[in-house]
Amino acid sequence: MILGSEFMDLVKIDETLDDLQIKDICIIQKKQGFRFGVDAVLLANYAKVKRNQTVIDLCSGTGIVPFIIEGKKEPKSIVGIEIQEDMVEMANRTVLYNEFQDKIKFINEDLKNVEVLKKMERVDVITVNPPYKLKNSGIVNEFDKNAIARHEICCNLEDVIKAARILLKDNGSFFMVHRPERLADILCLMRKYKVEPKSIKLVYPNTKKPPNIVLIEGKRDGGEFLKWENSLYIHKDSGDYTEELNEIYGR
Amino acid sequence: MILGSEFMDLVKIDETLDDLQIKDICIIQKKQGFRFGVDAVLLANYAKVKRNQTVIDLCSGTGIVPFIIEGKKEPKSIVGIEIQEDMVEMANRTVLYNEFQDKIKFINEDLKNVEVLKKMERVDVITVNPPYKLKNSGIVNEFDKNAIARHEICCNLEDVIKAARILLKDNGSFFMVHRPERLADILCLMRKYKVEPKSIKLVYPNTKKPPNIVLIEGKRDGGEFLKWENSLYIHKDSGDYTEELNEIYGR
Repeated sequence: MILGSEFMDLVKIDETLDDLQIKDICIIQKKQGFRFGVDAVLLANYAKVKRNQTVIDLCSGTGIVPFIIEGKKEPKSIVGIEIQEDMVEMANRTVLYNEFQDKIKFINEDLKNVEVLKKMERVDVITVNPPYKLKNSGIVNEFDKNAIARHEICCNLEDVIKAARILLKDNGSFFMVHRPERLADILCLMRKYKVEPKSIKLVYPNTKKPPNIVLIEGKRDGGEFLKWENSLYIHKDSGDYTEELNEIYGR
Repeated sequence: MILGSEFMDLVKIDETLDDLQIKDICIIQKKQGFRFGVDAVLLANYAKVKRNQTVIDLCSGTGIVPFIIEGKKEPKSIVGIEIQEDMVEMANRTVLYNEFQDKIKFINEDLKNVEVLKKMERVDVITVNPPYKLKNSGIVNEFDKNAIARHEICCNLEDVIKAARILLKDNGSFFMVHRPERLADILCLMRKYKVEPKSIKLVYPNTKKPPNIVLIEGKRDGGEFLKWENSLYIHKDSGDYTEELNEIYGR
């Protein structure tokens, strides 16, 4: 464990240290800024990752997806790629805090740099919680960090899937969380880059509303067969969280 | 109404006359053979059809979709296209039985005959409950009428969507019922033929199982935005039918 004085160096005055409730792992986040949400938690739980596998997480942000995957699945190694330099610096401090230097690292790279990606070692699993919204859908400020995390400013869906194609080993697995409204784009682009859609899991606020999150699994050069998993409902009719959601959150 | 002796002429010894429970409409079906199921009923209810609109139903079979649409929505006219001659003959006897000669007709045509389709008058709405299964998935007999209705023997998904593109007016609406397992094929082919996916409604046996039916709406040359409707659950947790299903069936 890290001692008091070192701890003070790792977490800055405008940041918080939040306990993930998994094996004492804590994550550093900005007090004001993009903080992880249910989407990242659902993605990290949905991704099928084995102990001997290597993982790259795209659009990694605070590193939340790698840290949950490390806590729950203990893969061989995880690399997070993130375009915002200060986020990478913060995520690497979370690595130090949790003493994951041998397992996890974050690199500051633009996933549109295809030539750089081609030189990287290919992996078994790609995870990504990309910006969901189209570039021109109500952006106030393109330099705003929240906008970069939520809108397709620095990369779009096609860039993400193209990067996954390059970075995956043959038959490697791709796991993404996105919005159901984009499903036609998602499935068509996955087919275009031959990351075949293999499984879909929809997430609903409750049984009375339409789905608002989609989890999708693809396989590089996989055969055409799409399986639908049981849907996840966040709330029961009573308003309480469902057992399945509580289980994901370890409650 | 048709009198007794005429009634006897219209329904053959190997057929039944079934009351649709909508404005006294009855449909002739083979005792042994393809009989309509929940998919056709859901499609006919899902399709948005206005009173002044014209409709073509592809893969029309017994004509169930046109007869329910006529009963519930009273459009200007409906043409059913069906490749099996004896089905067309039977569906046209259902027209006579219900005295819909001025509104509905069935024609014996192969929807792959693009040149024939191009000569037809374009319509506001296309509905289709096509064969769901891939051609080579466990077919016993290609001349079996059930196999033709269920497997892509006489036409495949691409043929259906291509035909819809040809037959629809500009901005005309396309409504299809299919299997969720084929959703990647469906969305990619709709995009290929510029019948843009606009709305999806999933149907679940209950909240504990994955969806097993998908209803999809497209618009010819429509803009890219996909809306998800509330899902339909056939059964409650108790095993009873849900209120929404009972409403569709008029119970």
